[in-house]
Amino acid sequence: MRIDVYFTPLGFNAGDVSGRGVVVIDVLRATTSVVTALANGAKAVIPAATSEEAVRLASNLEKDGVLLAGERKSVKIEGFALGNSPREMTPEVVAGKTIVLATTNGTPALVAAQGGDPVLLGAPVNFKALVERARQALVERGDLVIVCAGRERQFALEDAYMAGRLVKAVKKGIRKLDLNEATTAALALTPLYRTWAEALEDTAAARQLVEANLGEDVAFAAKQDRFGVVPQYAERRIT
Amino acid sequence: MRIDVYFTPLGFNAGDVSGRGVVVIDVLRATTSVVTALANGAKAVIPAATSEEAVRLASNLEKDGVLLAGERKSVKIEGFALGNSPREMTPEVVAGKTIVLATTNGTPALVAAQGGDPVLLGAPVNFKALVERARQALVERGDLVIVCAGRERQFALEDAYMAGRLVKAVKKGIRKLDLNEATTAALALTPLYRTWAEALEDTAAARQLVEANLGEDVAFAAKQDRFGVVPQYAERRIT
Repeated sequence: MRIDVYFTPLGFNAGDVSGRGVVVIDVLRATTSVVTALANGAKAVIPAATSEEAVRLASNLEKDGVLLAGERKSVKIEGFALGNSPREMTPEVVAGKTIVLATTNGTPALVAAQGGDPVLLGAPVNFKALVERARQALVERGDLVIVCAGRERQFALEDAYMAGRLVKAVKKGIRKLDLNEATTAALALTPLYRTWAEALEDTAAARQLVEANLGEDVAFAAKQDRFGVVPQYAERRIT
Repeated sequence: MRIDVYFTPLGFNAGDVSGRGVVVIDVLRATTSVVTALANGAKAVIPAATSEEAVRLASNLEKDGVLLAGERKSVKIEGFALGNSPREMTPEVVAGKTIVLATTNGTPALVAAQGGDPVLLGAPVNFKALVERARQALVERGDLVIVCAGRERQFALEDAYMAGRLVKAVKKGIRKLDLNEATTAALALTPLYRTWAEALEDTAAARQLVEANLGEDVAFAAKQDRFGVVPQYAERRIT
């Protein structure tokens, strides 16, 4: 059995995930927001690479049932119903809706993960449920790929730290396991912080959110196991 | 003052290094080989992106004074005088020569580092001298960028571990220092291994070299401070 971590969606090919179990992580904030939206009753989330693509995708859906969501530089895209804050994804707002979501880092990671089976989305807010599903995928497929969204095409500590915690939890009790070198590095991060909050607060992404008056999103993302859902991405929809 | 580590040359822009002190690391094997060649009397090393480019660059130079060197999948390029093994770069072979070198991972890292000032090349074989020059660049410029070559566009443990050791040594006694998140991760690797040999042997690059009957290159690269030279890259030449 084998686990491969990738710190960014750059530089790996579709062949690297084809037919393998995949977990996509963008703690601040895309995967936290998607988990929250689906847990609160959204029908589906459709990721879009750009705001233009989001508008185009939404125009093909029934107007009543769709919400445009997304951010650029942390801030809500003008004219969109929602930003990319998990705190916006309340049952009142999202229940029964399809959300078309454009985000800077999360969407490229999902695109890179296409071809994986299953492609699971995770964050601290669904950590326990994710560990269970990821472990199941690893055992069934013999193979697990963890794709960190990263930040502006670079290494992001919050995603790498979560990858390390996930590997640590998933591999418990499994004896023969090959790990790529980024997995070794992700595991080396786990002793650096005692809590999710400590790790998340120590990041450039968190500082940018605080500056945009979205600091509460960091605290929201740092609370483990708020939800028991594990979103799955297939045929360009997350459900 | 600020130190930024990049685990691969992907995803950062020329603007990220412009006017900053830069260190390029490709332990297995490009920077080890370049340090060795220059320490053993080579006049210059000219990096080339492809074997075709290497041939073209060499054709512009005096035939007597030039050596073609390079590898694909660890193995010497057919028709070239040298591979990319530091053990080939003996004084008898390289003294007074200009080497045109085509390597898989090292050259893209050097290309990405263009615009830095200075651009230094390092490996365990010139570690002590490199620390001194890198620290000087950091103090003078207020800024140091460390570019890991990585392996096939992905994270490589040997380069990241060396980056961590380098940061640890360079920052000693400096009080106010901003570090990017990859630097935090590189530092977290330093306690994992007691020696260079332990770290280097634990890598996919080393395993590939052993398979190609080049295992002795790993031992060569793992011996610290063989040489006191710190190669510098400017105007497409390393001297």
